[in-house]
Amino acid sequence: MKTIRIESSANAAYKRLVKLKTPSRARKEGVFLLEGERTVKELPQDWKVESLWISENYQGFIPKADAAYLLPEPLFQKAAETVHSQGILAVVYRKEMTLEEMPTAQGFWIILENLQDPGNAGTILRTADACAADGLILTKGTVDLYNSKVIRASMGSLFHIPFAEAETVEEAIDFIHEKGGQVIGTHLHTDLSYEDPDLKKPTAILIGNEGNGMTEKAAGACDQLVKIPMPGRAESLNASVAAGVMMYEVLRQRE
Amino acid sequence: MKTIRIESSANAAYKRLVKLKTPSRARKEGVFLLEGERTVKELPQDWKVESLWISENYQGFIPKADAAYLLPEPLFQKAAETVHSQGILAVVYRKEMTLEEMPTAQGFWIILENLQDPGNAGTILRTADACAADGLILTKGTVDLYNSKVIRASMGSLFHIPFAEAETVEEAIDFIHEKGGQVIGTHLHTDLSYEDPDLKKPTAILIGNEGNGMTEKAAGACDQLVKIPMPGRAESLNASVAAGVMMYEVLRQRE
Repeated sequence: MKTIRIESSANAAYKRLVKLKTPSRARKEGVFLLEGERTVKELPQDWKVESLWISENYQGFIPKADAAYLLPEPLFQKAAETVHSQGILAVVYRKEMTLEEMPTAQGFWIILENLQDPGNAGTILRTADACAADGLILTKGTVDLYNSKVIRASMGSLFHIPFAEAETVEEAIDFIHEKGGQVIGTHLHTDLSYEDPDLKKPTAILIGNEGNGMTEKAAGACDQLVKIPMPGRAESLNASVAAGVMMYEVLRQRE
Repeated sequence: MKTIRIESSANAAYKRLVKLKTPSRARKEGVFLLEGERTVKELPQDWKVESLWISENYQGFIPKADAAYLLPEPLFQKAAETVHSQGILAVVYRKEMTLEEMPTAQGFWIILENLQDPGNAGTILRTADACAADGLILTKGTVDLYNSKVIRASMGSLFHIPFAEAETVEEAIDFIHEKGGQVIGTHLHTDLSYEDPDLKKPTAILIGNEGNGMTEKAAGACDQLVKIPMPGRAESLNASVAAGVMMYEVLRQRE
């Protein structure tokens, strides 16, 4: 692999790298940034690296890539996202899966409707990966899963578990229905407990926005709304905890 | 309530406020900082405010306090922790509960051993509060629960649910045993599932450090080690999700 040394921040490729720090720009170009030796090392082989950006002080694992650039330390730090960056940055191609390509073997999906917090999204990816769910379906209002905070919180699960975007929550729910599945939503105002539905059937768990819960549209289109009991004083659960409790109820019933 | 106007950052009370941003200093003085109208408004009445710090631009709820200071906006912003601060900062007295004062009515506790992430700690507080647990016992290596990120993630639950510090994890486990309870730890290397133990008995759930799990000492002192099954590819669960799954198993068995 040929390595090109860049000395100036006026270099066109470098200027583009800095622009990729804007999430919408990276998204438009079909790539995302991955930072740090461990993260880059754990990227599975089926994810393709477009370009590598390495500090002259870096000593560590270097993966295969289409192009590699060596940078003076100050230029590298300027491009890096984290304060104590570890000397390696990879520009990686996104994988876009359409809803139609979503696996169905397990009959187990998670729908995220307008989920906003990247830590929650990453944690839900991680739990869904632990539970061997088929994949996640996201509505357009949900946080970009290639956000660096999602990647960190997912602990590698972003690269294991399939996910696809739906135009609307109805499209996501219709997809599950077409596959013969039911959609179960967690809701504060319902009398049905999360243990009541038959979760051996093909099932999607729908998780709504952190502050507002699911939309009325989504609540109307779900097959069943269930609540997770809260005998104590907290008025709601963290979204990733609620998702975890639901996913483990699916596993428990299917044991 | 008399309000004192401060014009200079050289003011002694103001200089002390800025020093309280260092967590160890706030801890030493037995206080913590609470920021923003909503958070201050939701502080229950039985928590005592030592002093209030209000921007001259602030218009909103003002709680009772021993002292109140009005600040020019730039001085206020210098003292505030968040970038878009909402014009009100409260210095609140900590409540210190000894282990002996920990309630026992529910026979349901959480032990946090060296848990480091404030988001996880706050989320576990929130779930424990939702589940009506008696309280949390923390080892000395666990993140300070009065950390502003813990407070935010707990969504008010920090002010509802009792917590006490133990000198060592053995002291925490001994306390549960003295109360006739069992200690159940989540562990990756055990054959027992989390559904196997009888959780109707008085029970403490022990959650270890995010990266390293519980210590050998803790694992040796637990009555039972259980695992949460992970049929998929993720190697572990987020600590607050694991804690949530365990706590809801306790509720499920006790229904």
